[in-house]
Amino acid sequence: MENKSSKYQGKQSMIFPEGVYVRGIASVAGKMEGEGPLGAYFDIVQKDPMFGASTWEESESNMMRQAIEHAIGDAGLGKKDVRFVAGGDLLGQLIATTFGIESMNIPLLGLYGACSTMGESLLAAAVFVSGGFAENMVAVTSSHFAGAEKQFRFPLAYGNQRPMAATWTVTGSGAVVLSSQKGAYHVRLCAATMGRIVDYGVKDSMNMGACMAPAACDTISRYFEDTGDKPENFDRIVTGDLGVVGKEILLAMLSEKGYEIGDRYMDCGIEIYDAKRQGTDAGGSGCGCSAITLTGYLLRKMSEGIWKRILFVPTGALLSTVSFNEGNSVPGIAHAIVFEYCGD
Amino acid sequence: MENKSSKYQGKQSMIFPEGVYVRGIASVAGKMEGEGPLGAYFDIVQKDPMFGASTWEESESNMMRQAIEHAIGDAGLGKKDVRFVAGGDLLGQLIATTFGIESMNIPLLGLYGACSTMGESLLAAAVFVSGGFAENMVAVTSSHFAGAEKQFRFPLAYGNQRPMAATWTVTGSGAVVLSSQKGAYHVRLCAATMGRIVDYGVKDSMNMGACMAPAACDTISRYFEDTGDKPENFDRIVTGDLGVVGKEILLAMLSEKGYEIGDRYMDCGIEIYDAKRQGTDAGGSGCGCSAITLTGYLLRKMSEGIWKRILFVPTGALLSTVSFNEGNSVPGIAHAIVFEYCGD
Repeated sequence: MENKSSKYQGKQSMIFPEGVYVRGIASVAGKMEGEGPLGAYFDIVQKDPMFGASTWEESESNMMRQAIEHAIGDAGLGKKDVRFVAGGDLLGQLIATTFGIESMNIPLLGLYGACSTMGESLLAAAVFVSGGFAENMVAVTSSHFAGAEKQFRFPLAYGNQRPMAATWTVTGSGAVVLSSQKGAYHVRLCAATMGRIVDYGVKDSMNMGACMAPAACDTISRYFEDTGDKPENFDRIVTGDLGVVGKEILLAMLSEKGYEIGDRYMDCGIEIYDAKRQGTDAGGSGCGCSAITLTGYLLRKMSEGIWKRILFVPTGALLSTVSFNEGNSVPGIAHAIVFEYCGD
Repeated sequence: MENKSSKYQGKQSMIFPEGVYVRGIASVAGKMEGEGPLGAYFDIVQKDPMFGASTWEESESNMMRQAIEHAIGDAGLGKKDVRFVAGGDLLGQLIATTFGIESMNIPLLGLYGACSTMGESLLAAAVFVSGGFAENMVAVTSSHFAGAEKQFRFPLAYGNQRPMAATWTVTGSGAVVLSSQKGAYHVRLCAATMGRIVDYGVKDSMNMGACMAPAACDTISRYFEDTGDKPENFDRIVTGDLGVVGKEILLAMLSEKGYEIGDRYMDCGIEIYDAKRQGTDAGGSGCGCSAITLTGYLLRKMSEGIWKRILFVPTGALLSTVSFNEGNSVPGIAHAIVFEYCGD
């Protein structure tokens, strides 16, 4: 056996010295996301919220399949060149993913990390690619506003009022083909930190930013401690969907630990909508939020060399209607991924 | 970069030439499983179906935590020695896993593969360990009869009748510590095949064996094709929870492809109960079924050198109440794991 000690540092973080490249990407967005500030960046903006299907679940499946197919094509590959898919969604028993990819005939590593799933799937796919277990592997996730409301909150027809701390589930699916071969994007995945579950006892499922911010703080500070890396080495530090409430909590918590990241901080949930104009309250959320912000916006900026290093930290709130109704808290989890420009 | 081509063979299968060992195991079972044919093998048989909790979900969480703690102790390790946990359960949004492990402070790779999850978690953990990204990693899953009935079928108090093809969800949690270091068990994980989703259009959620058998056939035959390995090289070929109905379908399908495995075939769902005496119809099912049969029974027989090579193939039915009620079929998935005795 080779000595593998260089591949991890500290308890939770992994280093990929080379060999894990972004080879293809796709962002499929809904109409409302297309009308937001990042609308022009998305590969596909689908105006039909049903994506040609007859149920919300099937529409999410169609959206995810579209994202995977687009990413594989973007990588200059065919389906047969992709060894595995790592992916998941928010719906119970991952049915959006199941029916989204079943016709593709690619083996599935089904993942659930709530809205952290884009981080989790990238992390897992990076380990497979780096370890030599796949040449090309797709990391994918999705969420659909209507499907998520039905799953977690109220039927749309009920017309419930929303507190200001509530977030708006993004309709979108992002996919990345990670590869052992360099692609046209000149971006590589060079490190990752797998997150722990962090539970501060917050029980308000309408304030998910507060539930997830402690997890984001835990993972980000752990990455810095594990690796000795520093905030100033990043052009952007980007969380998934903390929104305006979670953002303030995260910045304060990290500051207490001695990490000042405010000048380079970004949250996909804040970027994706114009909250005032679009009425999205605290911001966007859902697996698709960080996924399409990454694939539509962040990786494109990196590919152009505008940003050289990004710490991407999707955040998830671990609840179900059952756990919530039984009075449980809403624990959070966050996984961190480091992307680096390698075009020079 | 080293040449990694030896690590995979064919499209779906992965070879782990060395360095992935079974270091610790645990099987926690419910009362009914303790009264079944394998009862004497389980580490812990818990007579209280609530596992000291006040909800079915929390009882499953307690059971899973007990399994992980037992496996870590069995490996002669402490929690701090375990880098990651790969695991999941059947409940929507993995709440049994979330609340089971949140107090353990170990980073979580949350997985969903329905009842194939023991295979999926072992496969993922093997890739992390083999790739050098974890020295010790726990693969775990669980199911609880009452929680699963509530999630997928009818409340217990409803007293519904069950068709003969129905299976009985096992109350149990199995955990394995995979390690780069040899342990006392003299068993290593030497290959794995990640399964594709296979959908034959079966829509009967009370006949899950028929839904899953085609997936088991696909993965098993794919493993043989990818690697050139043969049924006669195995002492046992063991599926997860096909039950008596699924068993016949699988054996017939494999026979059509030229693989005769009947003389060494076993199904955890058939082994775990005495169907006639215990009234369990077609057999046991649930993530816990294959998990505790593996950790309680199969790995012990291997450790004693009685069986030298086993092909372990947990099977999952990919449905939710939503997908079922919307008229969808129940696709299947199966992941294959090869264990080998290495005590000589």
